[in-house]
Amino acid sequence: MRFSGGMERAFIFDVFGTCVDWRRSVAREVAPVLADVDAFAFADAWRGEYQPAMERIRAGGRGYVALDILHLENLDRVLDRFGIDLEDRAGLNRAWERLDPWPDVVAGLQALREKGLLATCSNGSIGMMARLARWGGLPWDAIVGADIAGDYKPKPAVYLRSAEVLGLAPESVTMVAAHNDDLVAARAAGLRTAFVPRPTEHGPGQESDLGPSEEWDIVASDFIELAARA
Amino acid sequence: MRFSGGMERAFIFDVFGTCVDWRRSVAREVAPVLADVDAFAFADAWRGEYQPAMERIRAGGRGYVALDILHLENLDRVLDRFGIDLEDRAGLNRAWERLDPWPDVVAGLQALREKGLLATCSNGSIGMMARLARWGGLPWDAIVGADIAGDYKPKPAVYLRSAEVLGLAPESVTMVAAHNDDLVAARAAGLRTAFVPRPTEHGPGQESDLGPSEEWDIVASDFIELAARA
Repeated sequence: MRFSGGMERAFIFDVFGTCVDWRRSVAREVAPVLADVDAFAFADAWRGEYQPAMERIRAGGRGYVALDILHLENLDRVLDRFGIDLEDRAGLNRAWERLDPWPDVVAGLQALREKGLLATCSNGSIGMMARLARWGGLPWDAIVGADIAGDYKPKPAVYLRSAEVLGLAPESVTMVAAHNDDLVAARAAGLRTAFVPRPTEHGPGQESDLGPSEEWDIVASDFIELAARA
Repeated sequence: MRFSGGMERAFIFDVFGTCVDWRRSVAREVAPVLADVDAFAFADAWRGEYQPAMERIRAGGRGYVALDILHLENLDRVLDRFGIDLEDRAGLNRAWERLDPWPDVVAGLQALREKGLLATCSNGSIGMMARLARWGGLPWDAIVGADIAGDYKPKPAVYLRSAEVLGLAPESVTMVAAHNDDLVAARAAGLRTAFVPRPTEHGPGQESDLGPSEEWDIVASDFIELAARA
């Protein structure tokens, strides 16, 4: 287990969409609980509340609260919209701790471990990320991101504080994401950038983030290729 | 790798002394760098500056800075006291990232993983803890503690914030330490407590923390027994 080199670099990862297939996994969790609902439509509606909920906090209209709490509030809103009365909302909210990794993720991360520290830089909470890692067997060295900074990506403090707590300068840290806007913000904060497309994150008709919008430092088709090129 | 139960509990660990044999490991790192010095005396002197440096921050006389920085400042002070001129002080400061676990630690943590989330709750930084985990093969799910709270143990915020970011109430979290004062503070904050003695942490003549000072929730002779009793 001794690690002889590379600890002066880190790779930090967006998780929802980049590492895990949240849409299919949430739909799988929703289906047995809400039998009469289109589970994919429900997953999309739930996720649709994600950015607006964080935006209030990013804009300063609300103090930082962990994403678990926002997810639960968003679930209330979506259940109301679908006209559903559900007692165990906290139970269904745990769907976000049971998201399957894309097929290349575990092998790619295992290979990339030889080249640096690996950490999440997600808007998810530390507890959510720890449980997701157990669920999917993701070998993180640390969990950084929103909970560390008390704010949500793409605010620069999230990237900068994540590098700082790892004891690294921003230019020694590579942000890995399937979302160009995440990398725009990471690059503006001084981090290196790696893009891995996930063209079915939003389902078969996805139109966004199908390719890189800028010349990112690394562009790889999956995490196996990322590990080889890093 | 799927984890079916126990994620509603966590065990959080003191690291220096409880998980790793800092004294012997620091002495091993010091010896080749400072050839004419008693390496154990130097390790003891370096560690002797630890509590006073944190105390200024705990008392509010200085804003929070990570332990890596305090260790480096303390190294300057101890080198001066020993009358030594050393150029690569940052290099020697990395000794604190190369501390060997006690022999029972890895096996005990692997067994305990079945019973809950495992995290460090150390005064060390996230980066230091991540590198220590790589060095010793320690299977943490997350790194919480001082960097999360922006303050140092035994301030209550460190224990409370550590539980909070794991998404758990204090009573669902067990603090594991070889130091009674750490457990006094954890219990006062509402956590459960487990004591594992490390009677040679401070060398052959150790007189402190040889046994439990209170009726802690668990007392175990090592991490193997801890995993069995938890």
